[in-house]
Amino acid sequence: MSEVAIGIDVGGTTTTFGFVERDGTCVQRGSLRTDVRLDAEGFVAELLDALRRSLDRLGGAHSIRGVGIGAPNANYFNGTVENAPNLGWEGVVPLARMVGDGLGERAVLTNDANAAALGEMLFGNARGLSDFLLVTLGTGVGSGFVVGGRLVYGHDGFAGELGHVIVEPGGRSCGCGRRGCLETYASVTGLVRTVREGLRHGRRSSLSSLGPEALDGRAVHDAAEAGDALAAEAFEATGARLGLALANAAAITSPAAIVLFGGLLAAGPRFLVPTKSAFEANLLNLYCDKIELRVSGLDGPDAAILGASALAWKEFEDDGS
Amino acid sequence: MSEVAIGIDVGGTTTTFGFVERDGTCVQRGSLRTDVRLDAEGFVAELLDALRRSLDRLGGAHSIRGVGIGAPNANYFNGTVENAPNLGWEGVVPLARMVGDGLGERAVLTNDANAAALGEMLFGNARGLSDFLLVTLGTGVGSGFVVGGRLVYGHDGFAGELGHVIVEPGGRSCGCGRRGCLETYASVTGLVRTVREGLRHGRRSSLSSLGPEALDGRAVHDAAEAGDALAAEAFEATGARLGLALANAAAITSPAAIVLFGGLLAAGPRFLVPTKSAFEANLLNLYCDKIELRVSGLDGPDAAILGASALAWKEFEDDGS
Repeated sequence: MSEVAIGIDVGGTTTTFGFVERDGTCVQRGSLRTDVRLDAEGFVAELLDALRRSLDRLGGAHSIRGVGIGAPNANYFNGTVENAPNLGWEGVVPLARMVGDGLGERAVLTNDANAAALGEMLFGNARGLSDFLLVTLGTGVGSGFVVGGRLVYGHDGFAGELGHVIVEPGGRSCGCGRRGCLETYASVTGLVRTVREGLRHGRRSSLSSLGPEALDGRAVHDAAEAGDALAAEAFEATGARLGLALANAAAITSPAAIVLFGGLLAAGPRFLVPTKSAFEANLLNLYCDKIELRVSGLDGPDAAILGASALAWKEFEDDGS
Repeated sequence: MSEVAIGIDVGGTTTTFGFVERDGTCVQRGSLRTDVRLDAEGFVAELLDALRRSLDRLGGAHSIRGVGIGAPNANYFNGTVENAPNLGWEGVVPLARMVGDGLGERAVLTNDANAAALGEMLFGNARGLSDFLLVTLGTGVGSGFVVGGRLVYGHDGFAGELGHVIVEPGGRSCGCGRRGCLETYASVTGLVRTVREGLRHGRRSSLSSLGPEALDGRAVHDAAEAGDALAAEAFEATGARLGLALANAAAITSPAAIVLFGGLLAAGPRFLVPTKSAFEANLLNLYCDKIELRVSGLDGPDAAILGASALAWKEFEDDGS
């Protein structure tokens, strides 16, 4: 009988889950809407229902190692989701216990970027590394720091918020209530903001004709490839901000590699070349030629599920069970 | 028979050592000049000689747990000091092995700030903490990050260079060859540079009459206390830079406390108040009221020896010997 870990990724609009073998094979997957009309109890009831139906379809051919959950505002130590505005859940929700008890399995919880880091370590482009950094570059910027083979959770379970390092004091307003956070510049949203600022300052661009909805990361990439100067400069500026921030983070944890994941990577060299250039230009001499920038090995639809399942595989791997 | 660890702090001008019991009692100490006319072999011969004389005076009443060495450019994993311009040693010097073999004891090596972090954890103001950050604020800025009870060494043994996080792209030139590193602003040297910049810009100050040698951290503090506006603003600016950098570091490792150590602390509230204020103003909401800024509990002449001995106590504590 083969063994699987259940990986669950709770997102703001959709929750996905899958049953993942130790080699990263996802033998079954499913999803449900993270319906903001439901409170946490209602959501967990629907999630458990979907998981049980999926388990029934598996037909008892697999034993379950445990459950790993990636979710926003997740506290690893307590297994709780705390004050998550994106999910519409108020207060502190003991999600790991609710899901674990519901299934009669052990469950563990962290944020999606931390889970993604473990996914890279077990199944992706950080295999064999015990010191690395995973950075997600999507709507926002998330990060998971692995030090000495273990995720850095900090004293409170909330460590690894590279997206909220302030890179420009007094700069762009951030959803966190402060100004100048990295994620206001070095995310897909930040890229689009850079273009919008250029347009507001009267820059000519093929992007000026697009409505607010159509002006997204893909449109900026397409425009840059078609020779639009503003779009090209927006990628340069985004890469420059990120490269410096990564060089600064490297000075703290000295990783063997930094793995990049998420929407911005779709732009390929257009984004990666200025990022690498700024990273290398700003790296302390001591670290030069030692730290590799890599693109995620899991950049597919199962990436989040694999990350969440990796959390369970890692958490429950050495306890003799 | 009581047991001691030997702590050795190798500085640019002076090397100090001591024999330290597990409770932090330093039962004997000594020092020698780190004579830059000597190469590493010559220095180690003198150091071993001094250590043996000191051991003879102890008279065999103590067993030795091991040797801990704090030194610049130290690689923990290899026990080497690598390309240390301050010591005048070229290339890679296997200092831990040379000292360990010379004494017939186990020896371990890291940089002075990492050793200081372990000193705080075993003997100082980080006792009981498994996630904290130690920052030394002297001529430069050093740091040691403790995560989950273990020092962060990184993949290469050189992690924890908070002083070389770039806080002002294109800013002040740094000894590392780059520009805008934290230590060019938030050290005693940085404080004095801020005053000098003010004087060059024509600011009136009681400090303008001092020669280059006399214009030091103490003079700036005395001037600030006597009502000098430029001196007072220099402390404000120094604290503001440091507070922001500490808030950014906290977003990465989420420590329970940040322990501050070194020359800038001599200015007391003059320096601490603006530092705390900027730290709290720039801290991500998630971490507010969770992270304490503390002053070192080891800010005496034995601090560096205690830190180096703590490295040995920590390294050799759980190996059954």
